[in-house]
Amino acid sequence: MPKIVNHHIRREQLAEATWRVIRQKGLEGVSVRGVAEEAGISLGALRHYFSTQSELLSFSMRLVSERIKERIEKLDLNGDPRQDIEMIIAELVPLDEERLAECEVWLAFTARALFDENLRIHSKEVHHSLYILFRQIIDSLIRLKLTRQDIDAELETKRLHALVDGLVVHGVTRAQSFTPEDITRIVSYHLDNILR
Amino acid sequence: MPKIVNHHIRREQLAEATWRVIRQKGLEGVSVRGVAEEAGISLGALRHYFSTQSELLSFSMRLVSERIKERIEKLDLNGDPRQDIEMIIAELVPLDEERLAECEVWLAFTARALFDENLRIHSKEVHHSLYILFRQIIDSLIRLKLTRQDIDAELETKRLHALVDGLVVHGVTRAQSFTPEDITRIVSYHLDNILR
Repeated sequence: MPKIVNHHIRREQLAEATWRVIRQKGLEGVSVRGVAEEAGISLGALRHYFSTQSELLSFSMRLVSERIKERIEKLDLNGDPRQDIEMIIAELVPLDEERLAECEVWLAFTARALFDENLRIHSKEVHHSLYILFRQIIDSLIRLKLTRQDIDAELETKRLHALVDGLVVHGVTRAQSFTPEDITRIVSYHLDNILR
Repeated sequence: MPKIVNHHIRREQLAEATWRVIRQKGLEGVSVRGVAEEAGISLGALRHYFSTQSELLSFSMRLVSERIKERIEKLDLNGDPRQDIEMIIAELVPLDEERLAECEVWLAFTARALFDENLRIHSKEVHHSLYILFRQIIDSLIRLKLTRQDIDAELETKRLHALVDGLVVHGVTRAQSFTPEDITRIVSYHLDNILR
């Protein structure tokens, strides 16, 4: 394996170990020592990949949105516009263990970003890129003349964005009672409502 | 002032000092010593009101929902059903400094509740009581025959609940760009959509 690829894979593995620590103990429970232990490597070896805790956290946060972006890019979006949209939104919400992990980590970072300047910048970027994604979805539905007549593109986008983030919060915090089926049904109900 | 009333007021003042610490440093920045300092009293005096940090945090979390509940109970809800609902929802979202503080504290507790058993119980109660409130709203609109015909009470309730919590997250984390006017407009747009 080329060294550079190996380096990137190791960084992702360490970020995943960071996610596991966050999910067990919260962001305040993260230390480089604890992550090294979780990943089964020495502190010195970890320092080779991340020289500071702040760098490790930033990378771990970015990895959430990168993973989602990669999955969305890989989707086979050639079918029905409505199905395409349901598939895209499905990548953002906690429908399985992988997405639940991402959403839990996202929630931890979102809460922390309120008083952590470094994280706030990335949190803002994630928010903005999701807004753009939702705006593209709404604009394409309008262009295809599939929406109700009285639609307001900006408000509809912000509403969809807030709804999806609310579903993430409920899916993560009420995982026992607010099931993946609930999330899927609410998204579908909402789309019924936007579409003619 | 009767001693018992004084006792309760002092506890609320200490919870408010806890909120200020949470907003500055996050939940992990809270210590009984730091809260005593923020409140301008001695650690010994604070211990008179809260014997443990866990008790102080539980009370501070409960105070958020109590304050909201008190404001909703005081609302003069005798007018138009739609206006009544807008007034109720307005008490839950960050439209001014007081509600922004509550919402920031709520977000911090919500994220922490994921791995803190004590907080999780209360977080679940808050979630459930909000669900009941939203369900009453939707049911009353249906009873008054004000909604679209194809409404599904349970899905509509869960959708409204997720939307409002999503608006809270966006209002809190994007306070610079996601304004109180945005929140009010989205709520109004959503109600237009539920109503005939």
